[in-house]
Amino acid sequence: MIKVGIIGVGTVGASVANILKDNADVISARAGVDIIAKSGVVKNLSKDRGVDIILSDNVDDVLNDAEIDVVVELMGGVDEPFEVVKRALESGKAVVTANKALLAYHRYELQDIAKDIAFEFEASVAGGIPIINALRDGLSANHIESIMGIMNGTCNYMMTKMTNEGVSYDAILKEAQELGYAEADPTFDVGGYDAAHKLLILASIAYGIDAKPEDILIEGIDNVRSEDIAFAKEFGYAIKLLGIAKKDANEVELRVHACLIKQEEMIAKIDGVMNAISVVGDKVGETLYYGPGAGGDATASAVVANIIDIARSGKSTPMLGFDRPMEGSQLTLKPTANIESKYYLRVNVSDKAGVLARITKIFETHNISIETMLQRPSENSSANLLISTHTATESDIQAMIDELEALDFVNARPVMIRIV
Amino acid sequence: MIKVGIIGVGTVGASVANILKDNADVISARAGVDIIAKSGVVKNLSKDRGVDIILSDNVDDVLNDAEIDVVVELMGGVDEPFEVVKRALESGKAVVTANKALLAYHRYELQDIAKDIAFEFEASVAGGIPIINALRDGLSANHIESIMGIMNGTCNYMMTKMTNEGVSYDAILKEAQELGYAEADPTFDVGGYDAAHKLLILASIAYGIDAKPEDILIEGIDNVRSEDIAFAKEFGYAIKLLGIAKKDANEVELRVHACLIKQEEMIAKIDGVMNAISVVGDKVGETLYYGPGAGGDATASAVVANIIDIARSGKSTPMLGFDRPMEGSQLTLKPTANIESKYYLRVNVSDKAGVLARITKIFETHNISIETMLQRPSENSSANLLISTHTATESDIQAMIDELEALDFVNARPVMIRIV
Repeated sequence: MIKVGIIGVGTVGASVANILKDNADVISARAGVDIIAKSGVVKNLSKDRGVDIILSDNVDDVLNDAEIDVVVELMGGVDEPFEVVKRALESGKAVVTANKALLAYHRYELQDIAKDIAFEFEASVAGGIPIINALRDGLSANHIESIMGIMNGTCNYMMTKMTNEGVSYDAILKEAQELGYAEADPTFDVGGYDAAHKLLILASIAYGIDAKPEDILIEGIDNVRSEDIAFAKEFGYAIKLLGIAKKDANEVELRVHACLIKQEEMIAKIDGVMNAISVVGDKVGETLYYGPGAGGDATASAVVANIIDIARSGKSTPMLGFDRPMEGSQLTLKPTANIESKYYLRVNVSDKAGVLARITKIFETHNISIETMLQRPSENSSANLLISTHTATESDIQAMIDELEALDFVNARPVMIRIV
Repeated sequence: MIKVGIIGVGTVGASVANILKDNADVISARAGVDIIAKSGVVKNLSKDRGVDIILSDNVDDVLNDAEIDVVVELMGGVDEPFEVVKRALESGKAVVTANKALLAYHRYELQDIAKDIAFEFEASVAGGIPIINALRDGLSANHIESIMGIMNGTCNYMMTKMTNEGVSYDAILKEAQELGYAEADPTFDVGGYDAAHKLLILASIAYGIDAKPEDILIEGIDNVRSEDIAFAKEFGYAIKLLGIAKKDANEVELRVHACLIKQEEMIAKIDGVMNAISVVGDKVGETLYYGPGAGGDATASAVVANIIDIARSGKSTPMLGFDRPMEGSQLTLKPTANIESKYYLRVNVSDKAGVLARITKIFETHNISIETMLQRPSENSSANLLISTHTATESDIQAMIDELEALDFVNARPVMIRIV
């Protein structure tokens, strides 16, 4: 029998305890051994959690319990769970976590600490979708060429509603908050940080890249407005917040930002709060994984699957997918400035003579070539220039945006969305 | 070092040898050990296979080679590979196969023979998509409520073309044959047998159901005509050949047939030769897996992933996903006659008075309730009645079709397509 202790019994933690009980028949038949949730740790003991396990407000009651084989960490945060997980591993207990922030910062240290002890984290990326499993085991024969994922359901819900129902950014953000999809402070979701944590975890497994959030390009959807959605629709694009990893020779670019993506692409068809991750391997081609990226039961489904893996075989795969570096062909992170893309720009200008000539001249001096341009009237006798470009580097486009912003007839910093 | 012998070096076998060589850097880094293709077996030694491994026309050269750790079986057929795989396992060699027919008939015997030796078969279902991996490991915490899959790319290509380009069944079958998607005798694909083999494999892993092709409902797309496509489009459906497994209390229904499916469903959006499998778990909800279901490199990607798994950890998971039966809640196969569905019928009738009254009366006597009916003129002063029904059992609908067919003003056996 395998005994589990759950540190952090919120929505996901309670689901883990309840799945182990509700689905005990199929779980024990698959694992070959009974698995039970023995105890849990919460901050506030007076709140009813809807579980029938022993609850304590002291992590030592789980960490020092010699009967506990697997510790499930669902505390949230970074520093405190890092200490808890470290103690669990050092005392020989296997660990399962859904904590993407912890992994975004400490996954390589944790890999060193875990050594021969199982440390699993399927639920940390895309909730119930077994994407870690797919990337680490199912696609292991491939050099991964790219990963493109809708990894934040809140942003995808907002973009879908803006596109299909013409709702404004502010109205849909308010609705998402009321539905519980977005927090009171939505920065972590709409600013792209949540997706970035997940992307960093996938980048380790696909490429062996050790990067932290501050090393990569992270933008959100907070600049996207109805005008941009209208432009996208007119030219056959959807707008999505994507996490992107892309291999280019011996470098890998990692970035999270809003994207214009052709409507025919599978990933462009994913609507609402769902997540989907497209992975291109050099041998398999494109595969795509779709499902619920959040929610107590969906996330707990992935946590329990990891516990079953551990019950079946202990540690069977290198935690981050690589047993050792690739000799002579180890990949490195591409500097953000060198990332290439096509771009869409929205430039709000005072509607007077000579403006267009000045703007196009600035594009020319930065060596950025325009593909399409629309001029649309806007408020207060201003106009919006909606421009798509050919491929340019991040450093060139940013320098040009700085120069455009400084012009007296440009009314606000131009909004830029990358085209994939 | 792990040494591999490949029995059957056709397109997939050659890809396995070449991936092990081309991607040796990433494969050895992930596996923690070098993996090389040592030798292969072919029927015709004079044909160039484009591989640099030792070739022989005698299986003993691989099976009796003490250096070979993993045998890859890619011979095709059932009886001969069964003997070869048995010999390999009995001599302690791990086995990887892509042979769905072998597994459709012999998977439980092979599980008994394999015992503690790894026997893997990711490539047998949906080519490069790691669906076995997802179902056996990633979703192991769930009771699986249903599986619905596009498991045959040839049929999906044909249905897509008929829908999007108005091509006739006969013309598109000819084109699929010319493109190499369909065989000269296309029965195995368009008759649903290929998809059925794959469904049976998934049914074992999801439900522990031991069934053979002759036990389940198998139909193909060979009755689908342009009139049916037109009806589907008019009422918001796509037509797809699906493999379906569905749990209903302690029974599981297994069936392969053409389906009318609502265009909004993710699985209805999968076009062309691609495969996709939707799995609904009681806890995770719906997840979907999309990718190439055939092709040398895509299939070999899955074969090599299995070899890497074996190199990493030997046998880490029960071959068919269950270590033991579910006590007291083992599932059984639902008899085909009891399967319930909604149905679409196309009845070609002589266009004369009283026909409609007679037909609707027969529906009534079989207790089958009509949802929509269209009458469309057809050739030779006949008419097509296009009818959708409410839910009825397979036995009732078949009895009614028999009765309709016997009527003198019904010109051919009515065509039936199930609605999901």
